[in-house]
Amino acid sequence: MEQLEYQEGRTELAEFGEFPLIERLTDGFTPCNKSTVKGVGDDCAVIGTGDKLTLVTGDMLVEGVNFDMMYTPLLHLGYKAVAIGISDIAAMNGTPRQVLLNIAVSNRYSVEALEELYAGVRLCCQRYDVDLVGGDLATSRAGMVISVTVVGEADANRITYRSGAKLHDLICVSGDLGSAYSGLLVLEREKVTYKANPDFKPDLDGYDYVLERYLKPEPRMDIVQFLREKDIVPTSMIDVSDGLASELLHICHQSQCGCEVYEERLPIDYQTSRVCSEMSSNMLPVSNALNGGEDYELLFTIGQQDYEKIRDSQEVHIIGHITEKGSPAVMVTPQNTTIELRAQGWQQNG
Amino acid sequence: MEQLEYQEGRTELAEFGEFPLIERLTDGFTPCNKSTVKGVGDDCAVIGTGDKLTLVTGDMLVEGVNFDMMYTPLLHLGYKAVAIGISDIAAMNGTPRQVLLNIAVSNRYSVEALEELYAGVRLCCQRYDVDLVGGDLATSRAGMVISVTVVGEADANRITYRSGAKLHDLICVSGDLGSAYSGLLVLEREKVTYKANPDFKPDLDGYDYVLERYLKPEPRMDIVQFLREKDIVPTSMIDVSDGLASELLHICHQSQCGCEVYEERLPIDYQTSRVCSEMSSNMLPVSNALNGGEDYELLFTIGQQDYEKIRDSQEVHIIGHITEKGSPAVMVTPQNTTIELRAQGWQQNG
Repeated sequence: MEQLEYQEGRTELAEFGEFPLIERLTDGFTPCNKSTVKGVGDDCAVIGTGDKLTLVTGDMLVEGVNFDMMYTPLLHLGYKAVAIGISDIAAMNGTPRQVLLNIAVSNRYSVEALEELYAGVRLCCQRYDVDLVGGDLATSRAGMVISVTVVGEADANRITYRSGAKLHDLICVSGDLGSAYSGLLVLEREKVTYKANPDFKPDLDGYDYVLERYLKPEPRMDIVQFLREKDIVPTSMIDVSDGLASELLHICHQSQCGCEVYEERLPIDYQTSRVCSEMSSNMLPVSNALNGGEDYELLFTIGQQDYEKIRDSQEVHIIGHITEKGSPAVMVTPQNTTIELRAQGWQQNG
Repeated sequence: MEQLEYQEGRTELAEFGEFPLIERLTDGFTPCNKSTVKGVGDDCAVIGTGDKLTLVTGDMLVEGVNFDMMYTPLLHLGYKAVAIGISDIAAMNGTPRQVLLNIAVSNRYSVEALEELYAGVRLCCQRYDVDLVGGDLATSRAGMVISVTVVGEADANRITYRSGAKLHDLICVSGDLGSAYSGLLVLEREKVTYKANPDFKPDLDGYDYVLERYLKPEPRMDIVQFLREKDIVPTSMIDVSDGLASELLHICHQSQCGCEVYEERLPIDYQTSRVCSEMSSNMLPVSNALNGGEDYELLFTIGQQDYEKIRDSQEVHIIGHITEKGSPAVMVTPQNTTIELRAQGWQQNG
């Protein structure tokens, strides 16, 4: 019998961040098929040979890590599982078409509970014209694990990678940042109170926006549509799943450039600011925007020539610009202080 | 705070089999994209519009349910995760091209352990010319969960569904049946002995074939190649992951037909028979073949006109034929008794 926990030369997962670990594990996998246009390292894999290419992306949601059954309605969870996959397709400037769901559940869940989850899946599929085409149902010993694969398509000449940002390009972000994490903070606060006193009735009035942002995110297919209508092909794009800082660093790393964003330009909703001030006098809304994650907004760069096409949009905010190779990724404060951006580690975002 | 375990009208998962449950959950999902050629209900989804179509399949492996870390080397586990996805592509008569892996792990695993798992993934990718193109790494609170998505391609006129079997077609199966489950039985037996006495050194000599069948299955891409060389397009096909009985019932259900297979024709390896006789005088090798599962052989039907092309193959066995609509799926014993086939339930194969 082999015991498979290595004793000697053991390196803990916590010593690595998620992305360096993925890089290490997938190092040396060299594609051999001509249909593999893009492998590991972007929001989607890109597959095919013609003018229309296929996009494929996979995400995993683990109970107790990525969602808490105490405050996550199954309807919302099903919706969100599909939505975050669609967001990866949006981040490549593509159109989602099909979804496959693999779900592991324990017998703690009833058939009716799974039906509720699938009702959420169906709502999201209908909202974004996506077909459920397959998946596996497995038994779990502990919590629920959802693995989602979304397949999409894109014109070869419109696919947008993380790697195309150029010097002086404008950095744009849709919607607002930090609100999903603020929603999570509210839910966690109410959970603690409820656990201390089960008679407590949580009052979630006035937090509707941040709660919906966390529990039922909408992938920004409207932005993909907007870019098409305005005839803009971003030079690079990524969706904001791990916080603005982490995503900016991905773009800078893969485009071999630096960047400068302006704190006062970061779009932050008033509910996000309100939650921060309630939580602690030390909690700054800008921290939630930089590091909170799960906003599923689109972060992208465009050439200066496209500025006029985008300047009047209410949904797209220009927050900075790309700087030259070798420069750091920084945020400039209203006091003109420059802060170097750092990605959050493994612990926060799994 | 919503509590999400429903009390009223609760239906236990155990009341359903896996497949009826999937049918119930996905009922009413109607494809809306013209690129969705085949949705839920076969070994793969089929996507695309031209002569070359894309195949996509998803599988999930859960620690403690689908594999036991006590006797599953991580190298083998990584290999097997990819292999079972490739087997689904083979079952559609297609060619595998890309794989995405989503893995959830707890900090019980080290970086070196994950590297071992990925080394197995790499071996299988190299063996079958498949490119690793993406995936997610998530944190798990308990055991490891692996979700694998394999993408393949097939000529539209060669794709083989479960639904095309016709009256009088010959039923064929590759390799042998029941050996993987026999390997699992040996491993479970040694585990019990080891747990009772940790000084015990398990003796696995003489079980090499059944152990390899369980721990490191090979998808039958050689059979897909053989069919191509012989210019045979099966009328229906499925891979044997849940046991011959379950797969025959899938084909009969979806092709709206019955079937008759002959017990003495079922290919069973001598190691499989030996394990059965060691385990119990009541354990019949034919039970392992019918219900054991995880063989990852190909079960397919061909028209009578292709009989000559296949009769001399050492790797393909003709085990019976398709009977008319409304007939049951049966096995005929050497004593000429007819036994109706039943699928195993949820518990056995998760």
